[in-house]
Amino acid sequence: MNAVSYLDKVNCPNDIKTMTIEELNCLSDEIRQGILNRANTLSGHLGPDLGFVEPTLALHYVFNSPVDKFILDVSHQCYAHKMITQRKSGFIDNPINSAISGYSNDDESVHDFFKIGHTSTSISLALGVTKARDLKNEKYNVIAVIGDGSLSGGEALEGLNNASVLKGNFIIVLNDNEMSIAPTNGGLYRALKELRQTNGMSQNNMFKAMGFDYYYLNEGNDIEKLIETFKKVKDTAKPTVVHIHTLKGKGYKPAQDDKESYHFVLNGFLDTNSDNNSAPQENFETYNSITVDYLLKKKEKDNSLIVVSPATPGVSGFDPSFREKMGDNYIDVDIAEQHAVGYVSGLAKNGAKPVLAVLSSFVQRAYDQLSQDLALNNSPATILVYWGAITSADMTHLNIFDIPLISNIPNIVYLSPVNKEEYLQMLDWSIEQNKHPVVIRVPFGGLISTGIKDNTDYSILNKYKMTHKGQKIALIGAGNFYYLASSIKDEIQKQLGIDATLINPVYLSGVDEKMLEDLKSEHNMVLTFEDGCIEGGFGEKITRFYGNCDMKVINYGAKKEFTDRVSLSELYQRYHLTPELVIEDIKKII
Amino acid sequence: MNAVSYLDKVNCPNDIKTMTIEELNCLSDEIRQGILNRANTLSGHLGPDLGFVEPTLALHYVFNSPVDKFILDVSHQCYAHKMITQRKSGFIDNPINSAISGYSNDDESVHDFFKIGHTSTSISLALGVTKARDLKNEKYNVIAVIGDGSLSGGEALEGLNNASVLKGNFIIVLNDNEMSIAPTNGGLYRALKELRQTNGMSQNNMFKAMGFDYYYLNEGNDIEKLIETFKKVKDTAKPTVVHIHTLKGKGYKPAQDDKESYHFVLNGFLDTNSDNNSAPQENFETYNSITVDYLLKKKEKDNSLIVVSPATPGVSGFDPSFREKMGDNYIDVDIAEQHAVGYVSGLAKNGAKPVLAVLSSFVQRAYDQLSQDLALNNSPATILVYWGAITSADMTHLNIFDIPLISNIPNIVYLSPVNKEEYLQMLDWSIEQNKHPVVIRVPFGGLISTGIKDNTDYSILNKYKMTHKGQKIALIGAGNFYYLASSIKDEIQKQLGIDATLINPVYLSGVDEKMLEDLKSEHNMVLTFEDGCIEGGFGEKITRFYGNCDMKVINYGAKKEFTDRVSLSELYQRYHLTPELVIEDIKKII
Repeated sequence: MNAVSYLDKVNCPNDIKTMTIEELNCLSDEIRQGILNRANTLSGHLGPDLGFVEPTLALHYVFNSPVDKFILDVSHQCYAHKMITQRKSGFIDNPINSAISGYSNDDESVHDFFKIGHTSTSISLALGVTKARDLKNEKYNVIAVIGDGSLSGGEALEGLNNASVLKGNFIIVLNDNEMSIAPTNGGLYRALKELRQTNGMSQNNMFKAMGFDYYYLNEGNDIEKLIETFKKVKDTAKPTVVHIHTLKGKGYKPAQDDKESYHFVLNGFLDTNSDNNSAPQENFETYNSITVDYLLKKKEKDNSLIVVSPATPGVSGFDPSFREKMGDNYIDVDIAEQHAVGYVSGLAKNGAKPVLAVLSSFVQRAYDQLSQDLALNNSPATILVYWGAITSADMTHLNIFDIPLISNIPNIVYLSPVNKEEYLQMLDWSIEQNKHPVVIRVPFGGLISTGIKDNTDYSILNKYKMTHKGQKIALIGAGNFYYLASSIKDEIQKQLGIDATLINPVYLSGVDEKMLEDLKSEHNMVLTFEDGCIEGGFGEKITRFYGNCDMKVINYGAKKEFTDRVSLSELYQRYHLTPELVIEDIKKII
Repeated sequence: MNAVSYLDKVNCPNDIKTMTIEELNCLSDEIRQGILNRANTLSGHLGPDLGFVEPTLALHYVFNSPVDKFILDVSHQCYAHKMITQRKSGFIDNPINSAISGYSNDDESVHDFFKIGHTSTSISLALGVTKARDLKNEKYNVIAVIGDGSLSGGEALEGLNNASVLKGNFIIVLNDNEMSIAPTNGGLYRALKELRQTNGMSQNNMFKAMGFDYYYLNEGNDIEKLIETFKKVKDTAKPTVVHIHTLKGKGYKPAQDDKESYHFVLNGFLDTNSDNNSAPQENFETYNSITVDYLLKKKEKDNSLIVVSPATPGVSGFDPSFREKMGDNYIDVDIAEQHAVGYVSGLAKNGAKPVLAVLSSFVQRAYDQLSQDLALNNSPATILVYWGAITSADMTHLNIFDIPLISNIPNIVYLSPVNKEEYLQMLDWSIEQNKHPVVIRVPFGGLISTGIKDNTDYSILNKYKMTHKGQKIALIGAGNFYYLASSIKDEIQKQLGIDATLINPVYLSGVDEKMLEDLKSEHNMVLTFEDGCIEGGFGEKITRFYGNCDMKVINYGAKKEFTDRVSLSELYQRYHLTPELVIEDIKKII
């Protein structure tokens, strides 16, 4: 790292207010070093943060945080803000202070107003802050920062509609870096492009149409011009959009050249000496690689197959090469999970074979569409839910709520494959059948293969698989936790001398009443395991089934709580997800 | 009713294609009679359906359903369409064929493509249908019809973004009747107004900005001009918006004059000889009336109180008089539940006291915002969930899923008051406290009053109320079902001679571990009752608590299923929600 000089002097936003433009530019360079340093140490959102350094400094130069309030959408551009609001230890120290999170967090600083990690929320949150200000007759600026990529999300658009009729100060800084995570696609982006190309003068201006005052700045990384622009809108009495054109990845050439790959980087990316940050070409299979291979082959045979992503193709391994090969059979609908679910319902209803790929944490945005557009219509679409698991993620990105969310919607078949062969058989069955909306929880973690083709007919709903018939204790291990249950079964044999039964339930959305009934004759205890939140989840269905009889049931999984970067080992201890702790629980009952 | 003549001749859309404009106008009048007749017999969405008769005829005149495909948003304008697609028995027969639903339903007709009852979905569904068409190399028109009121919903806006870049035929008919259910408010409506006032020529055109071809017709109830306009866009090769200006309530003066009251009417409204359809001024209290009274008084004392509605004020009794009295302390954010939840989170975080009123069925659209914007931030907002109950509603408007949806989100306190005094105490507590996001399930049905002020401190979370201490059997009755549990308790005493314990759990989101533990000493059976879907709901939390011991537990509530206008008595039989059936269940266990 370069010697830090200006950054040394900055402990709070006030410290930059006396700097010259030249000094601010030097400070920007130092902040960029901090961003690169953090991302290289702890992983992080590199590209968007690099592109928002100058705007951050200009905002803090012109406005007075925390009296004036910034609300940063999805937190993908919060690093510079954090560095000048008493949190540079999370960026420049050696070792880096990992207690500083990568997201906005009001527990960390008075300069943050919310915990934010999901997209498209800043306008709504900030508008609430603004209205509260007005009710209390207070005076200050409220500034929502939102990226062009986040603008396509329903909540942001709903917020725009309501914000534009406010009578009072409200400023939206639209950080237009011409990218979502991947390239943007929809008509909103056509509109933004036209505004960029006309230096903001295009006749068709959706913001003006809605009643906003509108300012455009093409040089969105020019501190002097940014300051000039923000000064114009400071203390405005009207809802105002300041549209600034910034460069994603600014200052780090690989990130400027390959914006998608460098949107988020894994730690150590600076050392990999490659021209992008993707993992080296792997020769071993992953759940992503077998999915991509399957879909490409399927499309060759059947042009009605279509793959849909709500702006998160990287999660599923839908890289540019895959997308190009899929051609018109791949659509990125931008950040728009609600639309995505309605869209695949329409596709399925009219005879196409849609596969929607979405993260567990983000499928949350589409509950009503899963219920009304999809399930009520029994549209035979396939939805792949990725990353569903207990993890040490930031509290904004937990992936444990999809089971309660999805498994309690009527008509949806929610499948939890445990290995490659099951997964591929389910995927193929789901795509070919035309009776049910099917959601598949793609296994999380390293690929497990039995080497034996699975020929199960998954149209016989809620038929569990008893993989080992024992007695006294039955372990039902769903999805990722099937093998955990299996290892616990072995430990029970060893420590308690009991040959326990092992079951792969396959279906998270239903109960195999016959098998559960049959268990009663030779078992007196059932343990369920699911890699997600227990409350409202799969295991409770089993417990309810046995509620009126003598069977003892314990459900294992995550508690209903927002955990924040808690290590997996600590979570597994807390939730009793180890053979030792489970056996202790069993001993208490026996 | 007038003598039906033209309608007699119409059995399918083809039958209108040879009619003259004059004949179509006569047919329109007859259809209006059918609409009035149905709404007066079975209740229904009167105003929007009356306003969309001519557009419906013109659409069917120009296009060829079912080859060309119409997808009608929220189904609030589907009556005329249903009448000319073999379903007039649901409108003109005497008695009316009540098997014909008030919503789009693909089980009823090939001219419907989906079951639709929630708002803002048509563009996404239709775009999926369109893309499937293109993948299959088929040729026809796909037409999404959406009202201006529905346009503010996130899914619709997400859909617009994706639709505008389609390469191919796709037509959106924007039915602009200048109203949502109540008046519209946001910037979108400013934009539509400017388009109306300029006969579609305004410079700032958000549809053109996004890339749509755009047509405007001011005379949206003029069949001749509608036909002319639709002919222009038929077989277009581009995404196209046809913006037509229609008159909500057309042809029935009271509905034209008071558009909000006549949006939806109750059966018998024609006979009430009043100038609107609201119930006669009631002198007795309802949960709506006490809520409104409370909020008005509270606002007088505290200007930081603010009431928010996502375009459904009527549900909560927020009539124009209430809204006027609340002034700036009432905001209708248009149909925008996601934004509404983010907004109240911002309000609460900045020291205001927001109360959001929303239907059980529609709160489904805001799961991610409840989780991320609200719960993760522990914003002390108050959300009132209305109509949460097992009902004989249409399958698109069930109100049984809010308990699984909300009670499994960390940090949210979900309360289920059982009577007036509890409800008011909870409401006041929730508004005044600043630690928790609180959702209150407003009791459904007639008001119950004990006459005794409730002084419970609801900040002691998850403390259940044991209202009668007995033995052997404990009944836990939540919310609306507390009194059902109470009556079952009496019946148990009578028939089984057991003095059962009765508990009001108060909290749907948590378990009173101490009380449940204490029950073990003198009870061997616990019955839970909740007026909603059991799966993922409240009762399962109780069952899980007792999973590892000898307590028998049965959960009562609705099954996970979409029921469609099934009578309450049939549902109660099906779900064993009667004293007789519960006692039978008990006998099987004892």
